[in-house]
Amino acid sequence: MVRGRLMAEGVPVEALARRYGTPLYVYSQSHLASRFAALAEAMAPVDPLICYSVKVNTNAAVIGTFAGLGAGADVVSGGELYRARRAGVPPSRIVFAGVGKTREEIEYALRANILFFTVESEPELDRIAECARRLGRKARIALRANPDVDPETHHYISTGKAENKFGLDLRRIERAYRRAAAHPSLEIAGLHMHIGSQILNPAPYGRALERVAGLCRRLRARYPTFRYLDLGGGLGIQYRPDQHPLDPARFAKIVLPFMQASGLRIVLEPGRFLVGNAGILVTRVQYVKSGPSKKFIIVDAGMNDLIRPPLYQAHHEIVSVRATRGAVFGDVVGPICESADFLAQDRRLPAVREGDLLAVMSAGAYGFAMASNYNSRGRPAEVLVQGRRHALVRRRERREDLVRGEVAPRWS
Amino acid sequence: MVRGRLMAEGVPVEALARRYGTPLYVYSQSHLASRFAALAEAMAPVDPLICYSVKVNTNAAVIGTFAGLGAGADVVSGGELYRARRAGVPPSRIVFAGVGKTREEIEYALRANILFFTVESEPELDRIAECARRLGRKARIALRANPDVDPETHHYISTGKAENKFGLDLRRIERAYRRAAAHPSLEIAGLHMHIGSQILNPAPYGRALERVAGLCRRLRARYPTFRYLDLGGGLGIQYRPDQHPLDPARFAKIVLPFMQASGLRIVLEPGRFLVGNAGILVTRVQYVKSGPSKKFIIVDAGMNDLIRPPLYQAHHEIVSVRATRGAVFGDVVGPICESADFLAQDRRLPAVREGDLLAVMSAGAYGFAMASNYNSRGRPAEVLVQGRRHALVRRRERREDLVRGEVAPRWS
Repeated sequence: MVRGRLMAEGVPVEALARRYGTPLYVYSQSHLASRFAALAEAMAPVDPLICYSVKVNTNAAVIGTFAGLGAGADVVSGGELYRARRAGVPPSRIVFAGVGKTREEIEYALRANILFFTVESEPELDRIAECARRLGRKARIALRANPDVDPETHHYISTGKAENKFGLDLRRIERAYRRAAAHPSLEIAGLHMHIGSQILNPAPYGRALERVAGLCRRLRARYPTFRYLDLGGGLGIQYRPDQHPLDPARFAKIVLPFMQASGLRIVLEPGRFLVGNAGILVTRVQYVKSGPSKKFIIVDAGMNDLIRPPLYQAHHEIVSVRATRGAVFGDVVGPICESADFLAQDRRLPAVREGDLLAVMSAGAYGFAMASNYNSRGRPAEVLVQGRRHALVRRRERREDLVRGEVAPRWS
Repeated sequence: MVRGRLMAEGVPVEALARRYGTPLYVYSQSHLASRFAALAEAMAPVDPLICYSVKVNTNAAVIGTFAGLGAGADVVSGGELYRARRAGVPPSRIVFAGVGKTREEIEYALRANILFFTVESEPELDRIAECARRLGRKARIALRANPDVDPETHHYISTGKAENKFGLDLRRIERAYRRAAAHPSLEIAGLHMHIGSQILNPAPYGRALERVAGLCRRLRARYPTFRYLDLGGGLGIQYRPDQHPLDPARFAKIVLPFMQASGLRIVLEPGRFLVGNAGILVTRVQYVKSGPSKKFIIVDAGMNDLIRPPLYQAHHEIVSVRATRGAVFGDVVGPICESADFLAQDRRLPAVREGDLLAVMSAGAYGFAMASNYNSRGRPAEVLVQGRRHALVRRRERREDLVRGEVAPRWS
C-alpha cells in the first residue's frame, strides 16, 4: 500500500484494472526474480539445476523470466514441453515427470533431447525404452522413489506417501533400476523424489533424504552415469498472515550437507515457491448483498478463474485495492451458479461497495493454470509488471474464443 | 453392450476412439431427444416452457438439438447467451439467471430482447432498471425466491437454503417486488426459484411450491403482467447403479395440480436431466501400476477433462468398452501431477490392460463444460452420435491452442 493504494511494484493496481479490465491476473517480475535468486543463492554451494515447474503458472512471460535467469523446466506433459521450449528453456535443462506419459509425448521429448525423464512405474520404463529404441536414441531416466514421508499438508497435494499413484516404493526401486539397466536404450541418470506440496517446514526433506541416502550410494557405485538427485518441489509460500514462506537458508542447511557428501548434482523443481506470492487476482465488486446473517460480496471473478478455494478448501487473503474504513462479516463469492463458487467464506472483510476493487492475494500459483470456461466465461487477462512498466501477457478471452473448434454435425 | 462391445447408439465406442482419439466425450442425440420428450410429455397439460440449462453442456450441437425440439435456454452469462443465440434458440425463449450480471451482460440481453431476467438481489434490480432506462427498453424480470427448502444433496450444489448467495428470502421478496414496480423500465414477469441440483425425489419441489403458493396468488392479483413461475432445474439423473433418474411422471403429479390452479405458465430449467446420462467420457488405459495394496489404472483422461470426482466427491460408474473377465481392486487415475487427479477410488474395476478403453458413464453434464487446460493438456474432442451416424462437434485442442492470446512483454 502506498498512500492508501495497493501497488504492483511501481504501478497502482487500480490503473491496471482500468487499463486491462477485470478479473485480471497481475504478476510481479521482480518478485519472480527475487524468489529465484533467494533459492539459487542458498543452494549455490552445490551448483543446483533449478527447473521451474511449468504447471504452476504457464504464461510464457513467467517461464521466460526464469529461463532468462538460467532456470530449466520441470514439465509433465507434451503441452508443457512445448511451452517451455517456446519460452526459451534449453532442452538440456528440461526434465519430464508424470505418471501417464503417452508414446507421442515420450517421442516428442526424445526428439527434443531433454535432460531426463522421471519414471513413475515399470511399465513406463519399458515404454520409454521401446520408444527410444525405435527412434535410435538413448533415453536418460531417473526413477521416482516414493519415500513414504508425510509432508503434513492437504491430502490432495501429498504425493510421497505409500498409497498414491506416484513413484516406486523403496523396496521395489532397486529391482526397477536393474530392469532399466537391462534396456540398452536407457541411461540411468539419477533418482527423483517429490514428497508433496506447500511444505513450510523443511524437516520432511531431511527425513526423505535420510531414507534414500544408502540407496543413492549403492546406485552411484553401480551405475557410472548416475549423477542427479532430483528432490522435486513442494517448497511452500505464504497464504495466511501468520505463515512464512519456506526459508531457503533453512532448506539449504538441511539439504547441502547431504548433497555435498553424495557427489550428486541436485535438481530442484520449485513452482509455487517462485510464483505464488508474486501474483494477485484483481476483481471488481459487482453487488453487495445482505443475507439473513451475513454479507455476500459478489465479484466478477469466479471459480472458473481460481478454483483453489472450493477444490482444496484453500485460503487466500483478500484485500481492498484502496484503503477502506470498517469491516463486514461474510463471503466473497463469484457470479457462477453454484454454491462452490466462493473466494472466501465467513470472514472479516473490508467494507467495500459496488465498483470497488479487491485483490485476491497469493494467486500466482495454480490460478490461471487451472482456469476454465465454466459458465461460458472467457478466461481472464494476465499482466506482467516490472517497476513502472506493465504489459499484457495474455489477452482476455472473448466470446468467439468459447466456441472455437466447434463444428455442426453434417445432419443438423 | 452388443456382442461384448459398448455401443453409442448404433456405433461401437471402440470405432469412435479409433477415429477421433482419446480422451473423448461422446453424446447420444437420441438420448437427448428422448429425455426432452419425456419431460415435455409429462408436463404437456400445462404447456411448459422448457429452457435447457446451457451451463451443463455447452456444445452448440447439444444446444441446437434442444432448440430444434422447441426448447428455450437458461443462460447465466453473456457467453451463454451468445452460445444459445448462435445455436438457434429464439430470444423469446431465453431466460437469464445468475448473481453477478455485469452491465455489459445486461445490455447485451436487453438488446437481444430475451424473455426475462431472473433477479437475485435488490442492487441487481436497480442495475437492470438503470440499464433498461438508458437503452429506452423495458426489462422483464422474475425475482428469485429462496424458499429455504433442503434438497438433501451435496452442500456445493444446494442453492435454496437460507444461507447462500442465491435469491431473496420470502420475508423480503414482496418488498423487492414493490421496488421493481416502482421502476418504470421494469416489467414484473414472474417468480423464479431453484432449490438445488441432482434431486431424485420430487417431494422437495412440492414443499417449495407450498411455500410460494400464497405469494404467487398475491403477486398475480397485484401485477397484471405477472404470468410465469420458473421452477428452475435440479432434476436428477443416475450416477450409481442403484439410482434412478427423477421420474417426470412423479414430478408432474406433484407440480401439475399447483400450476393448473395458479393460472401461471411454468418455466423449467433442466440441464443435467437432459444431458447427463446421454454422455460418456472415453479414455484409454496408459499403464496399470501395482501399488502396495491396490492397482492404479492410469488413463489418458484427467481432472482437467472431468473435475467432478475431486471437486464434488462425485461417483461415476466406469465400464470397460470391451467385455473383460475378472476384476481388480483399486483406483482409476489420470496423468495429472496431483493426488486429486482420480476418476474412481477404492473400487472393484474391470481387469483391463494397457491400450484398453474405459468409459466413464453419466459424463454428459458438467464434464466438458468444466474442462480446463491444467497441466497444459488440450481439452478433449466431442462427438455426437445418432443411430449409425457420428460427427465431430468440437475438435481436440492442439498445442498451439494452449498459448493463443499470449503476448511477450515489450521489454523481454
